Amino acid sequence: MTVSGDSIITNSAHSTNGVNGVNGAKTNGVKLSWEELGAKKRSQLLASIPPEWLIPENLLPPESQDDVTTWPETSGWFTSAELDITSLTASELVSKLSSGALKSEDVTRAFCKRAAAAHQLTNCLSETCFDRAIAMARARDEHLAEIGQPIGPLHGLPISLKDNINVKSVDSTVGMATHVGDPAKSDATLVEVLEAAGAVFYVKTNVPTAMMIAESVNNVFGRTLNPRNRRTTSGGSSGGESALIVMKGSPIGVGSDIGGSLRIPAACTGIFTLRPSAGRFPVRNCRSGMPGQEAVASVNGPLAPTLEDVKLYSKSVIDGQPWLRDPKCLPIPWRDVELPQKLRIGVMWHDGVVQPTAPVTRALKHTVAKLKAAGHEIVEWDNFDQAEGALLLQRMFVADGGLTIKSQLDPTGEPWRSEMYPYSVARELGTAEMWKLHLERTDYQNRHLDRWNKAGLDALLLPTIPFNTVKHGTFKHVGYTGVYNVLDYSAVSFPTGLNVIEGVDVEEPDYAPLSNDCKDIHATYEPELMHGLPISLQLVARRLEEEKVLAMTGVVLKALSG
Amino acid sequence: MTVSGDSIITNSAHSTNGVNGVNGAKTNGVKLSWEELGAKKRSQLLASIPPEWLIPENLLPPESQDDVTTWPETSGWFTSAELDITSLTASELVSKLSSGALKSEDVTRAFCKRAAAAHQLTNCLSETCFDRAIAMARARDEHLAEIGQPIGPLHGLPISLKDNINVKSVDSTVGMATHVGDPAKSDATLVEVLEAAGAVFYVKTNVPTAMMIAESVNNVFGRTLNPRNRRTTSGGSSGGESALIVMKGSPIGVGSDIGGSLRIPAACTGIFTLRPSAGRFPVRNCRSGMPGQEAVASVNGPLAPTLEDVKLYSKSVIDGQPWLRDPKCLPIPWRDVELPQKLRIGVMWHDGVVQPTAPVTRALKHTVAKLKAAGHEIVEWDNFDQAEGALLLQRMFVADGGLTIKSQLDPTGEPWRSEMYPYSVARELGTAEMWKLHLERTDYQNRHLDRWNKAGLDALLLPTIPFNTVKHGTFKHVGYTGVYNVLDYSAVSFPTGLNVIEGVDVEEPDYAPLSNDCKDIHATYEPELMHGLPISLQLVARRLEEEKVLAMTGVVLKALSG
Repeated sequence: MTVSGDSIITNSAHSTNGVNGVNGAKTNGVKLSWEELGAKKRSQLLASIPPEWLIPENLLPPESQDDVTTWPETSGWFTSAELDITSLTASELVSKLSSGALKSEDVTRAFCKRAAAAHQLTNCLSETCFDRAIAMARARDEHLAEIGQPIGPLHGLPISLKDNINVKSVDSTVGMATHVGDPAKSDATLVEVLEAAGAVFYVKTNVPTAMMIAESVNNVFGRTLNPRNRRTTSGGSSGGESALIVMKGSPIGVGSDIGGSLRIPAACTGIFTLRPSAGRFPVRNCRSGMPGQEAVASVNGPLAPTLEDVKLYSKSVIDGQPWLRDPKCLPIPWRDVELPQKLRIGVMWHDGVVQPTAPVTRALKHTVAKLKAAGHEIVEWDNFDQAEGALLLQRMFVADGGLTIKSQLDPTGEPWRSEMYPYSVARELGTAEMWKLHLERTDYQNRHLDRWNKAGLDALLLPTIPFNTVKHGTFKHVGYTGVYNVLDYSAVSFPTGLNVIEGVDVEEPDYAPLSNDCKDIHATYEPELMHGLPISLQLVARRLEEEKVLAMTGVVLKALSG
Repeated sequence: MTVSGDSIITNSAHSTNGVNGVNGAKTNGVKLSWEELGAKKRSQLLASIPPEWLIPENLLPPESQDDVTTWPETSGWFTSAELDITSLTASELVSKLSSGALKSEDVTRAFCKRAAAAHQLTNCLSETCFDRAIAMARARDEHLAEIGQPIGPLHGLPISLKDNINVKSVDSTVGMATHVGDPAKSDATLVEVLEAAGAVFYVKTNVPTAMMIAESVNNVFGRTLNPRNRRTTSGGSSGGESALIVMKGSPIGVGSDIGGSLRIPAACTGIFTLRPSAGRFPVRNCRSGMPGQEAVASVNGPLAPTLEDVKLYSKSVIDGQPWLRDPKCLPIPWRDVELPQKLRIGVMWHDGVVQPTAPVTRALKHTVAKLKAAGHEIVEWDNFDQAEGALLLQRMFVADGGLTIKSQLDPTGEPWRSEMYPYSVARELGTAEMWKLHLERTDYQNRHLDRWNKAGLDALLLPTIPFNTVKHGTFKHVGYTGVYNVLDYSAVSFPTGLNVIEGVDVEEPDYAPLSNDCKDIHATYEPELMHGLPISLQLVARRLEEEKVLAMTGVVLKALSG
């Protein structure tokens, strides 16, 4: 089994046992190739899992088993205490941890073990720091015992981190071999803020190359699988996180989003996320795949199985006053919101480029009907400028002619993955051209805001992605998410509670493709493969309305449950 | 008398009477040269002043008269009512306008006339819109008469605007011939917000070419003079504003700042200004000399003779919720601040590049002594990284190789002014290089914030410019202001109440130049020329601490008056 391309599947971690770990890109002066570095890294990762957390071969589910989410409960490998702990939400955990009803060390050990299992079933991790985790957990327990008060709002809670979020002494490879063996010198500001709130760090999670592919696949760690159906993607770039969370290997994870990298994996796996506007959560000392790119801001945010937990995380980080530590953060404290009784919500049925597949359209119709029934006002939102916004994003991504990523591939001879073709052939803009592109983007933002004001919207409801998920290697079209990166609006992706139904979610008889991507997506849609998988939607609010979009998502969920 | 170079001085407006105004850059298909466009523009500007507001030749002060600030009171050309009105502060005016004690039309006419006079004495205007002003003023008066309530916090108050702030149907040339005859299609968002608050617009003010010179001189309108001493500069790029305000031709003016363009003219003329962090005041639909440049943000802000009026303006704009109209604005409402009893203030005596001239150092020592006496804590702030910050700013300014400005000069054959030599010879960066420059800037911001935190500062006190002002054409070194543009910190320039004293403010005997600029500045310092002119300093707070830096300036003023 090799790691290049798409061939890493179940138990891939086991296949690299033969490679001895070495530190740094050079060993005794010998420069390692990208393949050697990848093999070394996978081996080190596997070796970092203690033997007692390696699943015995005889207990492993067969590679042909699509859904592995039930495995922890059915395998008998976990104690009931471990299963009880890892079945609690973050909010429930924090409550029990803060009161002393649960010990952080016990909680942390349970999540370490379950994360290790998740990795062995889905290849979702990139790094572990179990020793740090246990030490931190013990310190939390001791603090509580001594002081009688929790450290902060996340007291003793294990939180998983996307690969790019620097943790001292741990690599942040962002899926590129050149960064193997180059551990972070210090914790990211976000890590400092979360730690001050009481969190415990134990794993980092897999991403695509440079975090610029919508599936989580790279030449170092290979591909992460969707635990709900391992023949499908958990999305990207925060797809290690989404897989881990769906496996209940983490109660809350931190991902990042520059074109949909939080929302896409959340939607592919049916969990919640908040893409905040730039400046709410700290980004200092995180690794970027395209460092210095600023025309569209990369942000980070939480992924969790419940909306309540996304709120818990968001308020905890902001209460930590990150603006005192990261110059890119804004001094906007957590704001209580009072929503109008009746929300005015725009609905966009499709973006004019790709028609959603049947389950997504059904979920959108269902949600709109439920919102109307609950007394909210729904207005149609014209999609005429969506393609323009999506194209702006693409142009900003490749404005450097791909040189920044290339400079990270070349030192180890790492090839461009086929998904990154546009970067490999892009023409670099001069700064004067780039300034003109900034103007186009600002003009787009201005026009969009004017439309929003004229429509008097509280929120916009639309698909997160034009499908529920897809088979590996077939993800196309990030337009539904990317436009809101260009606009820097706050957005939530949420599971509707609906799932794909094979006999119901069939192609509309009058479907006509809107584009080649649309045609491809609909041609490869397989209801029987997707059957049972969750369907998510996206709710968007204005820039820097994180509290409001979270509260409005609560209103939508209430309507859906009514 | 010609307009190119530095030869526009007193009464220049009169000298262009012979040129007939034509609209647009082309007349009957004939393309006009930059000289013809400039002559046409000056002629139109003069023609826009009604005959009754043109100073009779016999009343004009001689060109040799340096200080013309007293001319309105001594010339006999103004009525006592006009002098009374134009001697009130903005806060006093708003109070009387809101109660109906003064009519907006009377106030507006008085400021129109005084602004016209100021222009004839200092060449400070670029545009007038007197008809709009009178109509707006009458509408305010009618509103008050009918409704019994003022329109908003700036009810009926004339406010002058820097040339780049778009006013419908009026040019925004930003000092370049190519923009002559290209009037704005709509009002800037800031103009909309101010108008909703009750303001009245009547003039726009002169700037340097592309607003990128620290003196207000360009090839269209020529040079603005400092009314306190017409042999010196009123600064730039908001130097039309500072000259107009010092002439009491405007109670509050709006300028902009990308490297010191608010603070430098404020300091050169001895008035107050606030350079806000990006996002507090709207910038949408303002003309930039380097449109699309985003590595360092251009912001706008008020200039006024009192701190109270700077606050009045700032709160009024923010209360107008500009973030609902401009996507670049932040939803941060006006915040009341409670200062600690004892402030902790860093002091930077010089920036390691240019030693301030004697009066500035005396003012800084005096202010520090007064602050200590008032019980505040003063700590030394190391200047080791100031030169680095200033250099970063210069590199970001010329990152496009000057192409953006060049593309505005070339169509009319307008030459580069000598002050803009660095732009004319700069090498354009590719986008990949630009991304690296962004990283250098972010790293600088990070390190500076860490230092600030470690020092536990409330504010930093330092010179605004390394002199009080300079003779025309000799301005050097924007490092004292520019570093805080790179950092995007909030900053106030304030007059200390001290003035240059010829016999006292002499060169220190042990002065040793820190650089060539330092040497030049000290070599050309003439105490006898500067005698009596005001000395200003700069107070800096963290990013987005506008309310706090204004409140702290109040504390400094109190200490100075104690």
